[in-house]
Amino acid sequence: MKRVLLTLEYDGTGYAGWQRQLNGLGVQEVLENALRDACGEPITVTGASRTDGGVHARGQCAHFDTASRIPPDRFPFVLNTRLPGDIRVTESREVPPAFHARFLSAGKRYTYRIENARHGSALTRLYAAHVPVPLDLIAMQASLPSLLGTHDFAAFQASGGTARTTVRTLRLAELRREGSLLVLTVEGNAFLYNMVRIIAGTLMEIGLGKRAPDAFTRAFATKDRLALGLTAPPQGLELTRVYYDPEAFVHPEKLRWHREEKEDAT
Amino acid sequence: MKRVLLTLEYDGTGYAGWQRQLNGLGVQEVLENALRDACGEPITVTGASRTDGGVHARGQCAHFDTASRIPPDRFPFVLNTRLPGDIRVTESREVPPAFHARFLSAGKRYTYRIENARHGSALTRLYAAHVPVPLDLIAMQASLPSLLGTHDFAAFQASGGTARTTVRTLRLAELRREGSLLVLTVEGNAFLYNMVRIIAGTLMEIGLGKRAPDAFTRAFATKDRLALGLTAPPQGLELTRVYYDPEAFVHPEKLRWHREEKEDAT
Repeated sequence: MKRVLLTLEYDGTGYAGWQRQLNGLGVQEVLENALRDACGEPITVTGASRTDGGVHARGQCAHFDTASRIPPDRFPFVLNTRLPGDIRVTESREVPPAFHARFLSAGKRYTYRIENARHGSALTRLYAAHVPVPLDLIAMQASLPSLLGTHDFAAFQASGGTARTTVRTLRLAELRREGSLLVLTVEGNAFLYNMVRIIAGTLMEIGLGKRAPDAFTRAFATKDRLALGLTAPPQGLELTRVYYDPEAFVHPEKLRWHREEKEDAT
Repeated sequence: MKRVLLTLEYDGTGYAGWQRQLNGLGVQEVLENALRDACGEPITVTGASRTDGGVHARGQCAHFDTASRIPPDRFPFVLNTRLPGDIRVTESREVPPAFHARFLSAGKRYTYRIENARHGSALTRLYAAHVPVPLDLIAMQASLPSLLGTHDFAAFQASGGTARTTVRTLRLAELRREGSLLVLTVEGNAFLYNMVRIIAGTLMEIGLGKRAPDAFTRAFATKDRLALGLTAPPQGLELTRVYYDPEAFVHPEKLRWHREEKEDAT
């Protein structure tokens, strides 16, 4: 029996999200079916992040256990022939039995894209939110430094959130223009349910002049969800990368499991 | 009666190409149906470029005549509510009755994208060709200057080509890396059928070391299609922009119609 870690890319358009679920097809289910077919045994995968329906991933990570003799680094080749084109395995490696894709993740990077053009775009409609009114990029950028560091992000979660603690640390929050796209990049130790989409929705309202650039600071003080903007639509969001401490690949048992912080990461 | 010029963006994935045709749905047909619905009269549109199935457009241009009272600059609003999300009208303007989207075009810019990564990409699969072996970017770039200027591109067309002359002028041919994507941009006065996809396919073979960087020069000399590489797949290609002489919007009758050169532009 060995534990294998996969790195995955997927186009979330056709899926009801990462998780196996009743109301639609989850990426997890498609992956587990391909693994069962390849390994000849039922396999359950555990993802680092439970992305919502329509959310994309460039670097999702997921682990599973198998008794098969497939060399651990061969899973991209073995699985990509069995998976649809909108799910690709880009890397695989053996990890110690105590490794855990979700509870040991040391951080994640998400990207959120906003198409800011009057008439929307046929080419980015599945990969960006559309805002038809010109956004004030400077005001949006000015609000971002207040997100950095360790804060209680209690106001930054959808009502379904069940995290034991809502304290999170962001180490990167950056917004840049690429043609008609505004591209938000955030990186932190962990994220609450819908946290990135709430940050993106608030930024849009700041850019529209509907909300002051100190909205994030106020939300930290009041812990009030209503101090922030609407949850931005899923198709703009991409899980870009999952980070692990190098020790996680060698002596994972020495690391503290961040179970309480990772309970509801988006 | 007035003539209106539209600028269009479309995701070619779901279409059999620009042209109305029997074996599948053309973008032209969907656009003509939306125009008939909006204007209350049957309308025929003439596109600047007849893109193939799966080929995308960021800046296709097309003209039509209408007796409707819709203000000529309102067509993006009028049509986008009637069109599917994978076709967007981004601009419209009235042009003189002698204007012609195709025969008066002074040039076009195309972009061809190659995903150069071992395992392909779930996110670019519909917008890039995939080459799993590392390409020699330097060799590919070295071959590009030979394309510039005026040449007989007879070797650079698919067998279906019916152009009266195969002399074309390229004014831009550029290849750059953006992460795992190689992005080719070409601009010229006009293009033969499949010309950009043949250039892209030849570049891939140069990048793989299967063909010498002087392949284009040899093809000009021999006029032999076999001196060039395979036609690269359609999903990597995007019609980025169509150029017109400013005079075309004022006194189009003073301009020579480039009918013979535009007969089969891709």
